[in-house]
Amino acid sequence: MQVKAGPLLSKINYPADLKQFSETDLEQISQELRQYIIDVVSINGGHFGSSLGVVELTVALHYALNTPYDKLVWDVGHQAYGHKILTGRRDLFHTNRIYKGISGFPKISESEYDTFGVGHSSTSISAALGMAVASQLKGETDRQHVAVIGDGAMTAGLAFEGLNHAGIENSNVLVILNDNCMSIDPNVGALKEYLTSITTSKSYNRFRDDISNVLTSLSKLGPNAHKYVKKIEKSIKGTLLKQSNLFEALNFRYFGPVDGHDVKRLASIIKDLSAIPGPKLLHCVTVKGKGFALAEKDQTKWHAPGLFDKITGEIKKSVPDKPQPPKYQDVFGHTMVELAEANKKIVGITPAMPSGSSLNIMMKAMPTRAFDVGIAEQHAVTFSAGLATQGLVPFCNIYSSFMQRAYDQVIHDVAIQKLNVVFCLDRAGLAGADGATHHGAYDIAYMRCIPNMIVASPMNEEELRNLMYTAQQENMGPFVIRYPRGNGVMPDWKRPFKALEIGKGRKICDGEDVAILTIGHVGNFAVEARAELNSEGYHPAHYDLRFVKPLDEQMLHEVFSKYKQIITVEDGSLPGGVGSAVLEFMADHNYNANVIRLGIPDHFIEHGEQPELWAECGYDKTSIIETVKKVAVKRTTNSMVG
Amino acid sequence: MQVKAGPLLSKINYPADLKQFSETDLEQISQELRQYIIDVVSINGGHFGSSLGVVELTVALHYALNTPYDKLVWDVGHQAYGHKILTGRRDLFHTNRIYKGISGFPKISESEYDTFGVGHSSTSISAALGMAVASQLKGETDRQHVAVIGDGAMTAGLAFEGLNHAGIENSNVLVILNDNCMSIDPNVGALKEYLTSITTSKSYNRFRDDISNVLTSLSKLGPNAHKYVKKIEKSIKGTLLKQSNLFEALNFRYFGPVDGHDVKRLASIIKDLSAIPGPKLLHCVTVKGKGFALAEKDQTKWHAPGLFDKITGEIKKSVPDKPQPPKYQDVFGHTMVELAEANKKIVGITPAMPSGSSLNIMMKAMPTRAFDVGIAEQHAVTFSAGLATQGLVPFCNIYSSFMQRAYDQVIHDVAIQKLNVVFCLDRAGLAGADGATHHGAYDIAYMRCIPNMIVASPMNEEELRNLMYTAQQENMGPFVIRYPRGNGVMPDWKRPFKALEIGKGRKICDGEDVAILTIGHVGNFAVEARAELNSEGYHPAHYDLRFVKPLDEQMLHEVFSKYKQIITVEDGSLPGGVGSAVLEFMADHNYNANVIRLGIPDHFIEHGEQPELWAECGYDKTSIIETVKKVAVKRTTNSMVG
Repeated sequence: MQVKAGPLLSKINYPADLKQFSETDLEQISQELRQYIIDVVSINGGHFGSSLGVVELTVALHYALNTPYDKLVWDVGHQAYGHKILTGRRDLFHTNRIYKGISGFPKISESEYDTFGVGHSSTSISAALGMAVASQLKGETDRQHVAVIGDGAMTAGLAFEGLNHAGIENSNVLVILNDNCMSIDPNVGALKEYLTSITTSKSYNRFRDDISNVLTSLSKLGPNAHKYVKKIEKSIKGTLLKQSNLFEALNFRYFGPVDGHDVKRLASIIKDLSAIPGPKLLHCVTVKGKGFALAEKDQTKWHAPGLFDKITGEIKKSVPDKPQPPKYQDVFGHTMVELAEANKKIVGITPAMPSGSSLNIMMKAMPTRAFDVGIAEQHAVTFSAGLATQGLVPFCNIYSSFMQRAYDQVIHDVAIQKLNVVFCLDRAGLAGADGATHHGAYDIAYMRCIPNMIVASPMNEEELRNLMYTAQQENMGPFVIRYPRGNGVMPDWKRPFKALEIGKGRKICDGEDVAILTIGHVGNFAVEARAELNSEGYHPAHYDLRFVKPLDEQMLHEVFSKYKQIITVEDGSLPGGVGSAVLEFMADHNYNANVIRLGIPDHFIEHGEQPELWAECGYDKTSIIETVKKVAVKRTTNSMVG
Repeated sequence: MQVKAGPLLSKINYPADLKQFSETDLEQISQELRQYIIDVVSINGGHFGSSLGVVELTVALHYALNTPYDKLVWDVGHQAYGHKILTGRRDLFHTNRIYKGISGFPKISESEYDTFGVGHSSTSISAALGMAVASQLKGETDRQHVAVIGDGAMTAGLAFEGLNHAGIENSNVLVILNDNCMSIDPNVGALKEYLTSITTSKSYNRFRDDISNVLTSLSKLGPNAHKYVKKIEKSIKGTLLKQSNLFEALNFRYFGPVDGHDVKRLASIIKDLSAIPGPKLLHCVTVKGKGFALAEKDQTKWHAPGLFDKITGEIKKSVPDKPQPPKYQDVFGHTMVELAEANKKIVGITPAMPSGSSLNIMMKAMPTRAFDVGIAEQHAVTFSAGLATQGLVPFCNIYSSFMQRAYDQVIHDVAIQKLNVVFCLDRAGLAGADGATHHGAYDIAYMRCIPNMIVASPMNEEELRNLMYTAQQENMGPFVIRYPRGNGVMPDWKRPFKALEIGKGRKICDGEDVAILTIGHVGNFAVEARAELNSEGYHPAHYDLRFVKPLDEQMLHEVFSKYKQIITVEDGSLPGGVGSAVLEFMADHNYNANVIRLGIPDHFIEHGEQPELWAECGYDKTSIIETVKKVAVKRTTNSMVG
């Protein structure tokens, strides 16, 4: 739905239009931009608090810089709505995150103002440095390269690696540290405490002021004292300014902290900083959710609240008329507590996703045994490995697409040592509106090639619980449980635990001509498809593999012995996926069958609702029905209903 | 070959024996340990300089700590030879890195003193923190947890992530920063400069001393002055000590720098630090190669020099009687310079492997266009992506097993954006004596599932050159070239460049009954096998795939039309590998054939010489011959010699 922009904002299609206004208009423009974001997100959904927090910064940047000649990189990109609206996409903004609409993140293919595609955190410094070094090599030394990165994103190692390199390149890199003390959940770690200590003036600033006052007083004691005071001042300037600050220690010139909601001052500072060559960091303090009282108050809830009433702040929830199945996430969260109560060895780890993963349930119930380690997937895995060496059983919950960030740690620190770490890969498969960067499309392929690894996927809530129960048993070794974003299928999900046999699938029903092999939640699509097919005279068999690795060889021998038409269905990449594993089995055991693999095809899938994307990729219920019909024989008798 | 240990060392089998000696013996023990390492490595080979540099630290740690109750984690593990010798493996040390001998790295399965398997860098802080938190949860609060990490390893993001978390856990973690200014090559980056500035006393220490002197003088000026001096002192203690140091900023108590070759002092400091709870860092300055003059002088060369004369320092090289084929590494290095001379857009990037990858050739020839970014694979990739957005063509050279550390960056920053970054994956396949951690076994599986990706592997030096030439052409998108450690097959390798068609393999020879499909260097094994097989009356066809992705479908149609017995050979993981890709082709096009896949089986492969490991895995020449014989028909006529 389109929304009307305020009088000034409606005149701004591009930064060139913004530059026509005088500095005194910037505040009003910021207010209108904020209101526009509130208006659109309240009725269309999307990320909210992050963009509200950087409205002034966004206006100031496009006012002070010469974009797109100057390169502006938004870290993560949750906060780039204002940027999109000011750079040619105001009238498209209502299609944000909608199937075939604009992306919720900056994206090179969408606009020349989007210099770098983002979605995952902490890439901006490295990317901006690459751009800056390129400018240097090309002799374009007047170009600015700005990375806007949150204090949450700054905790990831990649950001530190970027700083460490940028500090020795004499390139025009300006890092704007958007310090709001938040990731999606409150930020954690020593760096956050350090930044807080700077901004609250308890130390650095107060020290500077204290010393300054004392020195002034001392100076008045006479010429001798004055001489020493000069010495102290010199020493402090030479060393303190160089060393008293973490970023200065890494060769960045540090500026700030400044109020990130003072748009005029920000614009003027950014202009001034553009004149200073080399690496520099502007520490900018903002409030996530700024300008929308409820969002300021409960920043996690309002990170991406869904639809809401922009006046009352009431978040709109559709009220179902019967009990709904729970989210897999919540089943995970509650089951963690149940298991951990019974098994004292269990601990929980999340890299900055307590609320998204629902590990917050355990963090609340057992604070000493559940750890939010910040945006630090690599550390989350190696830390888990360390815990496991001492006999604990860490459940390390990482979104499938973020697990890509800790791939070596999975192989090197966990799998080689055969440590009992349980990886719960949330958001496996197509994740929905976040798009290509967030789909968990590759985990089956990249996990199943790792020796010692058990890789499983539950078809429903009960199976998720049972897999978790199974994984925490003694000496299981590395164990992956992948499950999708969103709801399962069992309203009455809380059933007693049952240990599952490793590498054991299950036959859901016998059939004729065709066997459907599914893994995980998509098995439910096959169940639905079969119901419809049965009524039309088709009777495919259905097997749930449950384990990608090890495969249930006994079951597969049955399948390949009985069926010559086999359809595999997975919510993952076709190259290297579970269908591919089935083909390996077939080749290794000299079977011949016609195997059709349904899954995520070999190109990047954009954003949209999950059902839209499942259909696009060709593995939803309808696709399964069509595929079965292509290869099965229609029977008029109804002898074999499963 | 066994070597005799010195009189004291020969009495030490375990740390308990070491503890029987008095502090005054520690120096001699260190000398004997150093000599033992020199004696053994000179005749058996292995890593050298790193272990010499930490001889005193190793002795001090096992003297002061209560290992294995206390947990000692060696980062990377190149430096752990002394540790191995002192912990039960002195008499096995001559089997170091030899097939079926002890590992060149700490390894849990080898000794209870090896708390964590290492090989890749920068894991130690996270692992030690995991152990420390486990101790805390178990109430074993007297246990120490020590991570020994080099300044090179400290540049990787994972180390920073570990510090950031450790800083807020009140666990007994002692990080010993082994500062020798080196990775394998000299260390780089802002952190290194910072550490140097601390250790050279130019700033922090001098500042402390300056201020102290001035304050003393000031105090003497009278009671008023004295009052202010007290204020300044208080302010400095409150803030400077807290903030003037990067590690203090992250909540670590910082101690040092100390001389890492003063074994008595080290032992006493480590004992003292054990009494201090919480996270702490000891900055220890050492000389890599200490005690072996040549190794101290040329630290990169002597990182792992091979066999040498321990008296003269002459490095032993076997002199071949005819021209030998070059290493793939050197072909890469020289070709980079050739290509970059012709194409100004080309830049080179290595994460801390200038000499290992031979990018040092370009770094010397074109210093502004070749970048060593430190041990920072994630940054190397995202930095490359940033360069590529500006139209440059980065060749990012990363060892295959280290590329696991930047997997998300490959997907998220390069592939999704279809940027023209060329990934040269060195050490692809079985890497040899470094063992399980260093084999490049998974790259085919984890790269071929990524959309937009071109994945190729050269069969020889000329093909490596031509693939590099091909990859740097306009709009190629992401391009992986994988090649093994060691020598190729073409003494006359420097031939004119030729662009290769993407996704085009080549038929090496026609044949009967059986087709062998190979990828990369292992194609040469098939050539040798075929020569032998021909003479025995077997005539397999041989096709070189050259591209894992896209596959040469035209060629595969030919293969599957003509042959019912197909053998795939690859230097990579069987699950998800190129054989698996061929099976996907077969299934997608409804072919039926008996496909046997040779490659790295689904378990971790230990260390040994490459030929030993190829044989063990079953894809060397002999294995190919045996496999062909199993499925081919022996012909008495000789009509079809390829």
